[in-house]
Amino acid sequence: MRRRSFIAASAGLAVIQGTDAIAANQPAPAGDLRGRTRAELPTPALLVDLAAFEANVRTMADHCKKAGCGFRPHAKTHKCPEIARRQINAGALGVCVATVPEAEGMVAAGVRGVLLTSPILEPGKIARMVALAQKGEVMLSLGHARQAELLNDAAGQARVTVDVLIDVDVGDRRTGILPGEPALELARLVARSKHLRLRGIQAYAGHASHVVGFAQRDKVSREAMGRAVATRELFAKAGLNVTILSGGSTGTYNIDSTIRGVTELQVGSYVFMDVDYRRIGGRNEQAVYSDFRPSLTVLTTVVSATHVDRVTVDAGTKALDTTVSWRAEAQGIPGLTYRAGGDEFGILTAEAGAKLPRLGDRLEFIVPHCDPTTNLYDRIYAMRGERVEAVWPLVARRESRS
Amino acid sequence: MRRRSFIAASAGLAVIQGTDAIAANQPAPAGDLRGRTRAELPTPALLVDLAAFEANVRTMADHCKKAGCGFRPHAKTHKCPEIARRQINAGALGVCVATVPEAEGMVAAGVRGVLLTSPILEPGKIARMVALAQKGEVMLSLGHARQAELLNDAAGQARVTVDVLIDVDVGDRRTGILPGEPALELARLVARSKHLRLRGIQAYAGHASHVVGFAQRDKVSREAMGRAVATRELFAKAGLNVTILSGGSTGTYNIDSTIRGVTELQVGSYVFMDVDYRRIGGRNEQAVYSDFRPSLTVLTTVVSATHVDRVTVDAGTKALDTTVSWRAEAQGIPGLTYRAGGDEFGILTAEAGAKLPRLGDRLEFIVPHCDPTTNLYDRIYAMRGERVEAVWPLVARRESRS
Repeated sequence: MRRRSFIAASAGLAVIQGTDAIAANQPAPAGDLRGRTRAELPTPALLVDLAAFEANVRTMADHCKKAGCGFRPHAKTHKCPEIARRQINAGALGVCVATVPEAEGMVAAGVRGVLLTSPILEPGKIARMVALAQKGEVMLSLGHARQAELLNDAAGQARVTVDVLIDVDVGDRRTGILPGEPALELARLVARSKHLRLRGIQAYAGHASHVVGFAQRDKVSREAMGRAVATRELFAKAGLNVTILSGGSTGTYNIDSTIRGVTELQVGSYVFMDVDYRRIGGRNEQAVYSDFRPSLTVLTTVVSATHVDRVTVDAGTKALDTTVSWRAEAQGIPGLTYRAGGDEFGILTAEAGAKLPRLGDRLEFIVPHCDPTTNLYDRIYAMRGERVEAVWPLVARRESRS
Repeated sequence: MRRRSFIAASAGLAVIQGTDAIAANQPAPAGDLRGRTRAELPTPALLVDLAAFEANVRTMADHCKKAGCGFRPHAKTHKCPEIARRQINAGALGVCVATVPEAEGMVAAGVRGVLLTSPILEPGKIARMVALAQKGEVMLSLGHARQAELLNDAAGQARVTVDVLIDVDVGDRRTGILPGEPALELARLVARSKHLRLRGIQAYAGHASHVVGFAQRDKVSREAMGRAVATRELFAKAGLNVTILSGGSTGTYNIDSTIRGVTELQVGSYVFMDVDYRRIGGRNEQAVYSDFRPSLTVLTTVVSATHVDRVTVDAGTKALDTTVSWRAEAQGIPGLTYRAGGDEFGILTAEAGAKLPRLGDRLEFIVPHCDPTTNLYDRIYAMRGERVEAVWPLVARRESRS
């Protein structure tokens, strides 16, 4: 019954997988969906292919072990405690998180070694992180003296010592203090703060992660991380603790892990991959970056088929993040292109001669950008082939909580 | 203490409101935040200004009453049962919804008169809508014979009669059957289906709603709705029930409500407004569409201020939808521009001479597009001036559920 005619993964652009049209009188899914087939899932749904996912987890762990570099994967990509546990079981030092609710969700699920990579200024949020520090192993990154002062005061009130990294802006220009003397001055402030414990440096080169072409990416990342390493040496000369230098991304993991002084990688997207990363190109100047396999898809249903040149699927900007400037493209089905048709729908258009899916057909898309897509869902269906092996809850999708 | 220097609402682009820097040692917000001030809310947070919101609810209700046209506001904009109740109390016939979880959330909250405007093909979802039909007043829209057959079968099994509108594609090209004879044929199929009750037509002209310039918008909308009215006449001649002709949008409410034959408006964004709608221009060719007041904002905190030309706020694509092609702009603070700086951050840049906000300052943004932004949150803080009057829960943000 199944016509899975195209699982090609070529050219770094979105791949569409077709599955069979839904059966009439299929029962309403209810409760636990474990053991059900792909055809029984309500759409739009977020799916992870376990074979590809497990290979990705292994590949990164093996690489880091071989390179002698630690890794603390970024959980903002997945927001999933089960994935965090699997990454840690494979050798990760813990996970990074981008928000306080993510930190709370991970700690509540028993995940340890949680590093908050984003700066926080609100006293309420600082108090929440201090409360987590009392419960288990969490670290914060700081880019401003005022943050250090607020955190030290809150830690003192709670009678806890909080681990801190100095967030250094190595060219990303979003967060962190400038490298060199400004960073050193902040590190000294942290070191003499009674309730803070300086652990080292965070240096995230977001401007390097998606540079297209390996040679250029290598150059940009080495320049950026060179600033972090130089700052680390300044700290060391001043007798400050620099046990940790945390940086890197899925795009630069095989660059940054070879830089002397980098102790751990903040790799995120490698577990899922996405179209955005696939197009940056591979190490030997391959067009497609294929070190990791696309494992994350959004399953959709064709809900309208009125016109000869297009069909409509039930996934628009509320279900399949399309904030990136280029469109997801259908490489797997020749002549088909996906674009968001507003918030609720996606439009598949066909060139002359291309065959459009039928009404009720189910189509799977590799997502343009994994992080903001998982942010739209509260669960991932973990698929072993055609069957749901597990349903993984996601935490902290709700950015605003009391 | 408060420096609210700029609440200008000019030029149809995003307005930034500045509030005071957060006080040190502010307590961690916990539990019920009613009665707290704006400065105590964790960011990013979704806020509605009740004065503006209530004026919008009243303006639309008054207009429709005067025009002799019903309205069934689209709840995909807000996903908020409390807002639905207020719209209905003001005179709305019920609400439209875009997804089955939205329908379930609204019915569970006691909202009646729920119209599902999107087509569904999955038997599981059809069964869920039939279950809602057993509980209360819901309607579905259909654009394909197969949908009618599946729905009739499911309704028969549940021994319920389901109200149905024929979804007619009047130029939007996303959902619906073609107007004229194809629509008539589908209506006849519905009319002779034992467990379906034909109620009329849905015709959503999404391609008209955001046409910039009133004269052109008027032209496009009248052409589109003309096709719906002609189809309605065909139905009537054939002796079919056409009690309802549902269409229209916030952009065309004062056009479609004057078209003879249109019985109700599916207006959505008017309760909140957004930058996208403000720029379409007003009735008398004003640059800003100001029939409704911007009431929805995202509250953010400046979390990094390292550079002289920019600061970073804690709202990127995960908190402030930026799928529209243009950027939110800071009209209120001269020389300031917002752009998403990735998933977690927003970047405010300043032209030469413009004054940047300080670290810890809190800034409010009118959202680029309200629907996909509310989709990112699970609650709205309803503000009466500086104070939280109520916290409104949102339903069905999670698209995928069992």
